[in-house]
Amino acid sequence: MPIRRPEPIAVRRNRRPKPKPETDALGFGRFFTDHMFMMDYEDSRGWHDPRIVPYGPIELDPAAKVLHYGQMTFEGMKAYRSPSGGIRLFRPDMNLKRLSRSNVRLGIPPIDEELVSEAIRRLVLLDRDWLPAAPGTSLYIRPFILAVEPLLGVSPSREYRLIMIMTPVGSYYEKGGDPVSIRIETEYVRAVRGGLGGAKTAGNYAASLKAQEEAASRGFAQVLWLDGVHRKYIEEVGSMNVFFRIGEKVVTPALSGSILDGVTRDSVLRLLNHWGIGTEERRIAIDEVAAACRNGTMAEAFGTGTAAVVSPIGELDWDGERLLVGNPGEAGPLTRRLYDELTGIQTGRAPDPFGWTVALDGSEEPAKPGRD
Amino acid sequence: MPIRRPEPIAVRRNRRPKPKPETDALGFGRFFTDHMFMMDYEDSRGWHDPRIVPYGPIELDPAAKVLHYGQMTFEGMKAYRSPSGGIRLFRPDMNLKRLSRSNVRLGIPPIDEELVSEAIRRLVLLDRDWLPAAPGTSLYIRPFILAVEPLLGVSPSREYRLIMIMTPVGSYYEKGGDPVSIRIETEYVRAVRGGLGGAKTAGNYAASLKAQEEAASRGFAQVLWLDGVHRKYIEEVGSMNVFFRIGEKVVTPALSGSILDGVTRDSVLRLLNHWGIGTEERRIAIDEVAAACRNGTMAEAFGTGTAAVVSPIGELDWDGERLLVGNPGEAGPLTRRLYDELTGIQTGRAPDPFGWTVALDGSEEPAKPGRD
Ligand SMILES: Cc1ncc(COP(=O)(O)O)c(C=O)c1O
Ligand SMILES: Cc1ncc(COP(=O)(O)O)c(C=O)c1O
Repeated sequence: MPIRRPEPIAVRRNRRPKPKPETDALGFGRFFTDHMFMMDYEDSRGWHDPRIVPYGPIELDPAAKVLHYGQMTFEGMKAYRSPSGGIRLFRPDMNLKRLSRSNVRLGIPPIDEELVSEAIRRLVLLDRDWLPAAPGTSLYIRPFILAVEPLLGVSPSREYRLIMIMTPVGSYYEKGGDPVSIRIETEYVRAVRGGLGGAKTAGNYAASLKAQEEAASRGFAQVLWLDGVHRKYIEEVGSMNVFFRIGEKVVTPALSGSILDGVTRDSVLRLLNHWGIGTEERRIAIDEVAAACRNGTMAEAFGTGTAAVVSPIGELDWDGERLLVGNPGEAGPLTRRLYDELTGIQTGRAPDPFGWTVALDGSEEPAKPGRD
Repeated sequence: MPIRRPEPIAVRRNRRPKPKPETDALGFGRFFTDHMFMMDYEDSRGWHDPRIVPYGPIELDPAAKVLHYGQMTFEGMKAYRSPSGGIRLFRPDMNLKRLSRSNVRLGIPPIDEELVSEAIRRLVLLDRDWLPAAPGTSLYIRPFILAVEPLLGVSPSREYRLIMIMTPVGSYYEKGGDPVSIRIETEYVRAVRGGLGGAKTAGNYAASLKAQEEAASRGFAQVLWLDGVHRKYIEEVGSMNVFFRIGEKVVTPALSGSILDGVTRDSVLRLLNHWGIGTEERRIAIDEVAAACRNGTMAEAFGTGTAAVVSPIGELDWDGERLLVGNPGEAGPLTRRLYDELTGIQTGRAPDPFGWTVALDGSEEPAKPGRD
């Protein structure tokens, strides 16, 4: 890829902005803002043509590699509205670094993280009116990279497209902050060491759909995955990492390569350490979890992720046995404290001792002629 | 899905047919014929609007689930030209049944196999001039089903599109029938029991790209995968199942759920049994393979798949050790016999004792107004 100065981002404005949905109707990932960002890659030219264009269908050759061999990576982060009306991002550098790591695993060429960072800023500012104002709401940002070369051989693509879309979101889980019931999955496996589990890529989620569906049909909110080798060690929950407060320690599975290196996970660990609460990142056997639930030392359990922030787990179903966590029906004190602290930092309601948030200001530049 | 009589397949002809490529330039999956088949699914309507339209770009919402969560399945089969100029398919029912099984694993609604079968017939006949005539060439048929609902939640889509494209193919491997060198992969894992390995879906191939690329950069044609649990048992090779002739027995890994149930694999097993040659489907440890190579009892090794039919393996690289198979530089007698017999049956040059081939005749009906 030739070294080149980053091109300026061209902007073609949407002349027919959509009506904004009611806050109550938001849900997750259902509505999309008026614009999206795109940029193309070819082996001979590198990444080029960064542009913001009206949100709308994309054209792909039916032989585009991503449609057959799943060569793609993605990210998910949020923009939050602060009490003063400003807009903040939460640790976007972590998401861009993870995107770069995922790209390495999937054989996708490196991106210019600064350019993508600038694209995020420009896109969010352009569609800032889409950021809902109600508490708990936010604007979810989804950058993704697709292998678009029209060639059916199983080999890395020589052409890619990076796209970024945004969706205003309410609360990810229908029940909001109530503790959820989670099913421990004993049949299906999501990922295994040596596989794709550590990368944010489509195949991991494809692998989870069936288990998710079966769990949902039995009334469970999510699936808790066990490792694919021993079928014994805790991995993660749906789109969340998982934490347990057992006695006075907070434990979470170590990053083994088969789970996602969550930005929220990292933030929670840092907050806990900052608060002087002992944490352990290690292997956690399902038997240990079950024993702690049975003997009453499982004080709290929660999932962490961009979508749900910190989400209390009330019970686990293990092959029909109900394993209860803490006080039935209510989120534990640490779960609540973490939720409040994190959302406080994210929205600028609380101080940000770690310098995690990035304020987006600067009025949007006037639209330039687009080249789409 | 309401029960309904299958709709007739609408046809909109391509008024600007492309020039056909030279046979030498064919390769695999590089050129596409003038038409493609499409059909849509919504929960409320079931599959509808089966149609043949000119080959060209498809439109997808950038939030289409397949682009984020990889919910898709696909198949690959071939049409062959017989000496008399007729066209034959090889066991297409097996591919459609496997597509249906893959759909179950991916949470995709069932297809009407008869309708898709009819679509294959119509599409191949319409583009029959694309079927190259030279020996070893064929027309590869790629049906695939994409989750197209524009919704970012990780759950099965409520909208799908089935597409079928076709590509004239030369020989899959550049070196043709010469034995290839294969690298035994000891770091990456393609699939694990409980995962997606038994289904034909994008995620499995995404997981293979990195290993494939590293093997290719070291001069190996393909990767041989070991199981994800013990990292010890043979799984499959790239887009092929794998067989070893050790002494007088032919062994191949049993279908454990993590490898694809190959149509060619099944055909080879049936042919060998028909010929009175002993076969075993079982676990095969890499140590057993290595020992047989070292002590000279590894008489032949080959991969089987639609793309390459039967492809001789000349040597295996196991963490730097070169494990030699049979006589260096030449395909073994059984490998050759299987290749000749299978391609003979497929093209109609040899008798078809199993009733595996389906002759496509009937001249193509006149084009009806399309509804795309
Ligand atoms: C599989 C998986 N695990 C964990 C997470 C949590 O990661 P993060 O906190 O960065 O959102 C996510 C969501 O992004 C995920 O998809
Ligand atoms: C992973 C994998 N294994 C094996 C095969 C061989 O299957 P078949 O003989 O049906 O082509 C294929 C190709 O389809 C494949 O993709």
